[in-house]
Amino acid sequence: MPDSERVLLDALRAAGSTSRAELARTTGLSKPTVSTALAGLERAGLVRRTGEVSKGQGRGRAAVLYAADPAAGYVIGVDVGREWLRAAAADLDGTVVGRRDTPNTARTAGAMVRDAARLARAVAAEAGLDWSQVVHTVVGSPGVTDPGTHRVRYAVNLPGWGRSGLFDRLHAELGTGLDVLNDANLAALGEYALGAGQGSRLFAYLWVGTGLGAGVVADGRLFRGGHGAAGEIGYLPMFPLPQAAGPGPATGAPAPVGFSARGGPMEDAVSADAVVALARSMGMPEATTRTAKDVFAAARAGDATALGAVECEAARLAHAVAALAAVLDPELVVLGGGVGRNGDLLLAPLRTCLRELTPLRPRVVTSALGDDAVLLGAVARAAEAARERVFDTRHDA
Amino acid sequence: MPDSERVLLDALRAAGSTSRAELARTTGLSKPTVSTALAGLERAGLVRRTGEVSKGQGRGRAAVLYAADPAAGYVIGVDVGREWLRAAAADLDGTVVGRRDTPNTARTAGAMVRDAARLARAVAAEAGLDWSQVVHTVVGSPGVTDPGTHRVRYAVNLPGWGRSGLFDRLHAELGTGLDVLNDANLAALGEYALGAGQGSRLFAYLWVGTGLGAGVVADGRLFRGGHGAAGEIGYLPMFPLPQAAGPGPATGAPAPVGFSARGGPMEDAVSADAVVALARSMGMPEATTRTAKDVFAAARAGDATALGAVECEAARLAHAVAALAAVLDPELVVLGGGVGRNGDLLLAPLRTCLRELTPLRPRVVTSALGDDAVLLGAVARAAEAARERVFDTRHDA
Repeated sequence: MPDSERVLLDALRAAGSTSRAELARTTGLSKPTVSTALAGLERAGLVRRTGEVSKGQGRGRAAVLYAADPAAGYVIGVDVGREWLRAAAADLDGTVVGRRDTPNTARTAGAMVRDAARLARAVAAEAGLDWSQVVHTVVGSPGVTDPGTHRVRYAVNLPGWGRSGLFDRLHAELGTGLDVLNDANLAALGEYALGAGQGSRLFAYLWVGTGLGAGVVADGRLFRGGHGAAGEIGYLPMFPLPQAAGPGPATGAPAPVGFSARGGPMEDAVSADAVVALARSMGMPEATTRTAKDVFAAARAGDATALGAVECEAARLAHAVAALAAVLDPELVVLGGGVGRNGDLLLAPLRTCLRELTPLRPRVVTSALGDDAVLLGAVARAAEAARERVFDTRHDA
Repeated sequence: MPDSERVLLDALRAAGSTSRAELARTTGLSKPTVSTALAGLERAGLVRRTGEVSKGQGRGRAAVLYAADPAAGYVIGVDVGREWLRAAAADLDGTVVGRRDTPNTARTAGAMVRDAARLARAVAAEAGLDWSQVVHTVVGSPGVTDPGTHRVRYAVNLPGWGRSGLFDRLHAELGTGLDVLNDANLAALGEYALGAGQGSRLFAYLWVGTGLGAGVVADGRLFRGGHGAAGEIGYLPMFPLPQAAGPGPATGAPAPVGFSARGGPMEDAVSADAVVALARSMGMPEATTRTAKDVFAAARAGDATALGAVECEAARLAHAVAALAAVLDPELVVLGGGVGRNGDLLLAPLRTCLRELTPLRPRVVTSALGDDAVLLGAVARAAEAARERVFDTRHDA
């Protein structure tokens, strides 16, 4: 019986409002089995009646229509960024019912956990939800969460965020199911669910902002790699390659350009700070280059030096895209993040450089979701997890 | 009924010799259904009786044991390399029953097609097979086969191999099912089936020889990318990154190091010719550096200059491994090919360089199958395809 309930619930989620007879047809279950299972799902609050439809030609009773109830549970998505904390509440369909953004003013990871939990509860309350209705939370942050220890590694832009015990504290504060996932991965899921990646069999979301990362979605699922670190392309190695030492006895290969405590060499070369550094080294004054945003604004206003800096940034990004293409061969690369979102300025020179660099050239477009990609990806992922949890919980009860 | 035959055949292939009662237990099919389906499979020549087993405690008749018949069809694997043509014949289990290697002396792609087809037929004949028993052939070659046009792109080391119509000619010469697949991809499958990649959830086979390529196996399946070009890491872009033009009006970013007609910059930097060029530029005479093999032999004999060249090559390969790790995060990288096979000399300096380059460090080992990786991968892939084809054909008949 639970199996047939499960089959029916999945069919209803895929098809929307459906009659008993149609459900029997599409699932292959007998009509009595469908009736019993629907009754069980109604009792558990997972399915509701949505209306009736006439059978046509005056052939007696109308058929009742059933649908999965998206209000059987709610979820929270949270985006913990260096500058902003964002949270959204959504139903099981992933439809957002509440949303709030707040500057991230926390100085410690502990304060960030507290602020994120508070924001989550505030968003739920504003949407008129009782916290007990929230079954799952997904938090996006930089770095790679170790599935075993729950520790976040490589989150160099969030001081203290890699400390052990943080996941457990957040879990305790929230009291819901919890996943902490890489922000670029979630943004990729967001673009797949609602944005520029819809329908793509294999695409990479390239997040370029205060840091650099990529999320890869293959056949609708995150490609996370052997240790959850797929797409950590900030660590792409810098060339030039070691060269021969010249005639004479071997002296060993020259030392490669390594990674720093702060991050990888590719991250250092293309993230927001690098855009500022490029602009200044080309002669722009500090006053008009406080942030990467300033540089893009100046370029958009026609400043030739700013345009040169942006072009150089685009050429660097082309190298990152070319490396992605050589390893993964994605159909599509979606540019996002505070830097990457400036597709109006970046895309043309990036594509030009890509043509010179490699014969493997994915389509490159700008993010459709902008600042919301991580948050909406977190919501989509949380809703997916919650649909499982709600069924299991209700069925056990 | 075909469905239950299919289920039984899969169960027999997974479990080996099995009795009727045991098959009913493991598949959930009723005993009469199992009996009928087994009879159908026996008639079709897909299943045979392998013996009897006593039911123990003197409880009457012994139970008949059944097994999938690996001789229900045969396959050919071919490895078309710049220097060698290799072919093997195998049964449906992938057990090799015949094998022959011959130098690749063909000057044109047309001659190569003819030679490969001849070699395939010779191997089958030597194994005592009638050619009509061969149901599928898989050919490995450099380059990327376009699934639509069957044209091979980027096969820069096999002159003419990219011409259109070659697949059709080979198909006509052989008269069997045919796939032409990238050699590094097949080597990866070979290492997964029988070599160093066994049991790995995500690994990359790094082929370094006359060219450079990688094959990626995720959860036992080839990861081929959006256009079949995943792992074409010869096209990893070369840095240094474009730099700012310095104060003054924008001059645009400097031109990147592009790809050549021959291949990608990473391929040019690490393939066999590069090893020779490195050794010569460090002062080794032409007489002792005719091939990369010579250089490795000299290094193995203790020649300090050759060791320096090998160390430089290892450091360059570390950059390729680091790029793979930053994008894919494989658990394991398997080094193979005429250059890559020299793990005794390459692995230690490669690992040292990797530690300086990146915190994302997969395990790196040498190929277990050596020169046979492509061929055995082709055989494994062909056997998989043939198991499908044989069932469909026999069932339709």
